[in-house]
Amino acid sequence: MAALSSLDELIAALRCLPGVGPRSAQRMAYHLLQRDRTGAARLAQAMERALAVLRHCVRCNTFSEEDVCARCASPRRDASRLCVVESPSDLAMIEQTQSYDGFYYVLMGRLSPLDGIGPRELGLERLIARADDGQVREVILATNFTNEGEVTALTLASLLTARGLTVSRLSRGVPVGGELEHTDVGTIAQALAERRTLS
Amino acid sequence: MAALSSLDELIAALRCLPGVGPRSAQRMAYHLLQRDRTGAARLAQAMERALAVLRHCVRCNTFSEEDVCARCASPRRDASRLCVVESPSDLAMIEQTQSYDGFYYVLMGRLSPLDGIGPRELGLERLIARADDGQVREVILATNFTNEGEVTALTLASLLTARGLTVSRLSRGVPVGGELEHTDVGTIAQALAERRTLS
Repeated sequence: MAALSSLDELIAALRCLPGVGPRSAQRMAYHLLQRDRTGAARLAQAMERALAVLRHCVRCNTFSEEDVCARCASPRRDASRLCVVESPSDLAMIEQTQSYDGFYYVLMGRLSPLDGIGPRELGLERLIARADDGQVREVILATNFTNEGEVTALTLASLLTARGLTVSRLSRGVPVGGELEHTDVGTIAQALAERRTLS
Repeated sequence: MAALSSLDELIAALRCLPGVGPRSAQRMAYHLLQRDRTGAARLAQAMERALAVLRHCVRCNTFSEEDVCARCASPRRDASRLCVVESPSDLAMIEQTQSYDGFYYVLMGRLSPLDGIGPRELGLERLIARADDGQVREVILATNFTNEGEVTALTLASLLTARGLTVSRLSRGVPVGGELEHTDVGTIAQALAERRTLS
């Protein structure tokens, strides 16, 4: 059906979105063309603009329209601390706590040997160089507490301590407001093993 | 964060896709920018091209780059039968059976009063006009066997029989290859009520 080629091409192109298979791609294409052409036009424009203007901050590696993002350019941040996160959304979560005023480094991923993402693919040498600027004293590892996040943290810890930096990790344990009855056993085991002495 | 506006705009624009909430939109934006810029550029182009060239076939209402799609322009089809489906993918399923050679009408939806889609929003008057062309003798209703699909079929049946057309519906029953043990009770009840006499 040569007459359908632009529709087929749209359906095929939608499959570049993560988690979108052939059926969802078809549903999305029909929805956009039938019910939301304005939204589709806006999305196409937003995508082209983002591709054109967004690059990575040379200091923290997050998405930025400038060489150095506004956060890294701020003179009010504590240059002795660097917090390493996996993604910009993790950074946003930590900012929301309003309890950290150091700088960040965004990995834009995690070590995942099975997916072919090793230290080189993740660009760990750029993080090492950033942490080695002479001002950073402590690197706080805030990667996720998944298997891959933990492996990433352990790898970074050995690379960074070898350079004489203090390396710390977010604490694990029962969530604030959490009830033991509804907490998974692994978390309780960790909370027990890493219990704090109350003075 | 003015520096993030094009990223925020992309995340907001992705939410026009059906089934995409704030978290998936964020994940999609990061994925495209970080891992698949080629795919994103292709998607933006495919979307703009589809919006520019795709319209609805004036005869069957499916997406088409021509006023009359290739299928409706075919002289080999049986003009006395018209099959009504909800979507282009339903049409594709029926074509795959290779057991129908009449024409189609694609509703591009179904009656759904709760979502504000009534006979006018669905453009049923265009289907009536199409079926009233003097050549169509039988209209085969192939809307889905969901509640909304059934309501759509019943509404169409009363509108079309009032015009002297023969109206039929796909049969319901146990799927080919299906075992009663693994068929839902509602389907078995229908298959029993609509049992066929073997001669």
